[in-house]
Amino acid sequence: MTVDTRFYAPLGALTLETAAALTGAQLIGEASSPITGLASADQAKAGEIAFLEGDASAKPTLSPHLSVVIVNEATSSLVPDGVSRLIARFPRHAHSTVAKALFQPRHLSGGFGTQAVAASAQIHAGASILPGAVIGEGAAIGEGTVIGPNAVIGPGVQIGRNSVIGAAASVHCALLGDHVTLLAGARIGETGFGVMAGPSGAEDAPHYGRVILQDHVTIGANACIDRGVFGDTIIGERTKIDNLCQIAHNVVLGRSVVVAAFGGISGSVRVGDGSMLGGRVGIADHVVVGEKVSLAASAGLFRDVGPGETWGGTPAKPIRQWMREVAWLNKQASTRKRD
Amino acid sequence: MTVDTRFYAPLGALTLETAAALTGAQLIGEASSPITGLASADQAKAGEIAFLEGDASAKPTLSPHLSVVIVNEATSSLVPDGVSRLIARFPRHAHSTVAKALFQPRHLSGGFGTQAVAASAQIHAGASILPGAVIGEGAAIGEGTVIGPNAVIGPGVQIGRNSVIGAAASVHCALLGDHVTLLAGARIGETGFGVMAGPSGAEDAPHYGRVILQDHVTIGANACIDRGVFGDTIIGERTKIDNLCQIAHNVVLGRSVVVAAFGGISGSVRVGDGSMLGGRVGIADHVVVGEKVSLAASAGLFRDVGPGETWGGTPAKPIRQWMREVAWLNKQASTRKRD
Amino acid sequence: MTVDTRFYAPLGALTLETAAALTGAQLIGEASSPITGLASADQAKAGEIAFLEGDASAKPTLSPHLSVVIVNEATSSLVPDGVSRLIARFPRHAHSTVAKALFQPRHLSGGFGTQAVAASAQIHAGASILPGAVIGEGAAIGEGTVIGPNAVIGPGVQIGRNSVIGAAASVHCALLGDHVTLLAGARIGETGFGVMAGPSGAEDAPHYGRVILQDHVTIGANACIDRGVFGDTIIGERTKIDNLCQIAHNVVLGRSVVVAAFGGISGSVRVGDGSMLGGRVGIADHVVVGEKVSLAASAGLFRDVGPGETWGGTPAKPIRQWMREVAWLNKQASTRKRD
Repeated sequence: MTVDTRFYAPLGALTLETAAALTGAQLIGEASSPITGLASADQAKAGEIAFLEGDASAKPTLSPHLSVVIVNEATSSLVPDGVSRLIARFPRHAHSTVAKALFQPRHLSGGFGTQAVAASAQIHAGASILPGAVIGEGAAIGEGTVIGPNAVIGPGVQIGRNSVIGAAASVHCALLGDHVTLLAGARIGETGFGVMAGPSGAEDAPHYGRVILQDHVTIGANACIDRGVFGDTIIGERTKIDNLCQIAHNVVLGRSVVVAAFGGISGSVRVGDGSMLGGRVGIADHVVVGEKVSLAASAGLFRDVGPGETWGGTPAKPIRQWMREVAWLNKQASTRKRD
Repeated sequence: MTVDTRFYAPLGALTLETAAALTGAQLIGEASSPITGLASADQAKAGEIAFLEGDASAKPTLSPHLSVVIVNEATSSLVPDGVSRLIARFPRHAHSTVAKALFQPRHLSGGFGTQAVAASAQIHAGASILPGAVIGEGAAIGEGTVIGPNAVIGPGVQIGRNSVIGAAASVHCALLGDHVTLLAGARIGETGFGVMAGPSGAEDAPHYGRVILQDHVTIGANACIDRGVFGDTIIGERTKIDNLCQIAHNVVLGRSVVVAAFGGISGSVRVGDGSMLGGRVGIADHVVVGEKVSLAASAGLFRDVGPGETWGGTPAKPIRQWMREVAWLNKQASTRKRD
Repeated sequence: MTVDTRFYAPLGALTLETAAALTGAQLIGEASSPITGLASADQAKAGEIAFLEGDASAKPTLSPHLSVVIVNEATSSLVPDGVSRLIARFPRHAHSTVAKALFQPRHLSGGFGTQAVAASAQIHAGASILPGAVIGEGAAIGEGTVIGPNAVIGPGVQIGRNSVIGAAASVHCALLGDHVTLLAGARIGETGFGVMAGPSGAEDAPHYGRVILQDHVTIGANACIDRGVFGDTIIGERTKIDNLCQIAHNVVLGRSVVVAAFGGISGSVRVGDGSMLGGRVGIADHVVVGEKVSLAASAGLFRDVGPGETWGGTPAKPIRQWMREVAWLNKQASTRKRD
């Protein structure tokens, strides 16, 4: 998991010793080893720091390349010998402290002329920047693309050709392909919702990932696509998302997926190509949905669904079972009033 | 269905022959006949091109004035003799190709001074345009109306007297009456959600209609009212819509309708005067709801409801039946555990 | 209930006689008594005008300090002797007429330089105001706080230190503490959804309260927190609210409450410290939820819940009962098809 330095400015590598001092953690390992990046424990490469929460009964998947991890007293035993560890009371919180010392999010800053476009932004001569738009340092806007009035394009954002960014929409920490459409007020690349325990109570977990919108993706008005925690949130080619949808961090939607209004897809969900989600469908985190699945309007899905299936209801089940339940209940309640 | 040229610039009439060439369709009819407008098949007037999808079992309502229509091999048989037809594999997609050759959406462009108000916009001396607002060509803003900070008013939009447009709200392709209130971030007149099949996969169907907000309408913060496909989305006098609602293309709401937060009304739904929709009510497309209907919070309605009724549940049913089911299920599951 | 004059400019006290003339109401009481403020009937202090709607069967709680109230013919009998009253057909509507004569919401107006920051705004030298931001008269922005691009800060708004206001977000009639985060497009302090009867039909009830966001509060992208009617909407320290949530007027959330995406909390609800609301949870108005309560995703809650409980379903019930119902229905509909 390589943090994209277009969105997060590297502040230089840390040693394990420095990380231990920053977090008050106990160090087991080589004090002078460098920490160069951030990752989740299942994806870490050498030098990338990860964390493990929970208790000793957890069965985390660990990357074979994991070299340093923040644990608590309980999860320390889950780490193979030879992996350096920092032992802390709140591993995720300690990890965020190290993260903030390694990378700093790039905010908009100077370099603006009267048009509110940063001097270092690369705007194709065939692009249109409408009044009130703000474009950050190092952003790139391709030929034929229109940045709508009062839209905000964050530092480092890359947008391809013939895309349209709607009025007052905002894009941060994201790469957009060609023919991408964002309707008015869409919010791409905000930090995801992750509440972690810290010494003073609930805190927001920082996010270092990105959003990728592939070619011909359309995002509805006031819809939100959060960026990944360490990796990316990915919306596949020709996928169409309606107004007021919420797509959480690290979600991966395939190609030509359709998500109707108020669709809510929780963290790390995967949805296969060509699946259709009716209005107000919700999917719980980490659920895997196959290709060409249909979910009926207002379904609340808490389990994986295989390819080609149609489910409905809350909690969602195969549509025939759901319809049978609806019909059966209707009949019983109508005829057995004196039960 | 006359396309409003304040929002869509006419590019000149086409002949059937040209339309056939643009779309690769087979032409049956008079090659030199002009196409002057766009419509749905049930509303078309002479010279307005429509389309028919599906198969031969469809029973479309056809306007008696229909003169030219795009069909596929199957639906060709549904069209009366004497109506010209273009036979294409993807009729709706071909229709959108013709539409784009007939009309071009007006985008914001030049004519802006330092205030980001187009020179051709007509702003009443008694209106207030707050900092950061952007107002497009040919827009008109009436006496006593306030355009909020960083709001966006698209080309041709007409707003009456004593209306208030909230901070960062946006309005396109719309006519607003007097005493209309949009709270912050409301999105009026974005393109509706219509995914059509095309030769390369899913594509967005273009929208050529408008939004009409009658006098004393209020639209909540971050709520969305999509414009019609060919006709209009209409919100009747004194209708009040809460935050984060979604009103789809071609919906018609009557007078004094109340829609609480997260209300979701799908395409072409009609709701009668004085109806009350509780929080998180959803209505499936083309459903017709009578006057003074009450829908309980979180109802999911898939069927027409007559005037004066109260329904609840998902799928929604008369409220007494729903409450009976809820009570019966509660009792059964409590007492018959060993069934 | 003291109206905060940073947000509402006082227009001077009225006498009862003037109020009666403005509203066409019948006056019973001392004509020359002054009306100096606004309140609900249960909170009014001397000189603050309140109202009572409904019929004689209502059992309103009345403040012992209530000195003047607008009633209808039916509710007049509920008011103790010695309290002045105005008798009107639409008490809430008449109250709003008096309110508008007492206080005028402060809108953005003059005093702007090229940066769209009002001359009277107090911006700490260590704060960052990004391009396109608009800041109103009398607003105050603390050290280390960042006002995002195209964000809007209304007149009189107070924001503490090290807070971050996201792109295109808006804040009105609100006090924000330190380390408060608003993601892009969040809408703080809009008028709540209150539809009142008036002589011409449905009208919006005006709101004169505020929003208080305590230290370390985070509000998600495009989420909405409405201001109170007369009192305040309060979000407690370290409470975290996800994208696209709706928090209505006069809600009080405790400390470290977590509200996942699409949470909808109706007017005057109270939620205790440390409670967790899953995605798409809805709570009906005036419901009281204890401390450390868990509500499962998509729960629709219509009743009070005591501390430490876990509820789910719609209408929500204790989670074991809900799961038992789900399992029982599944079993019955599977095995008794011929019932």
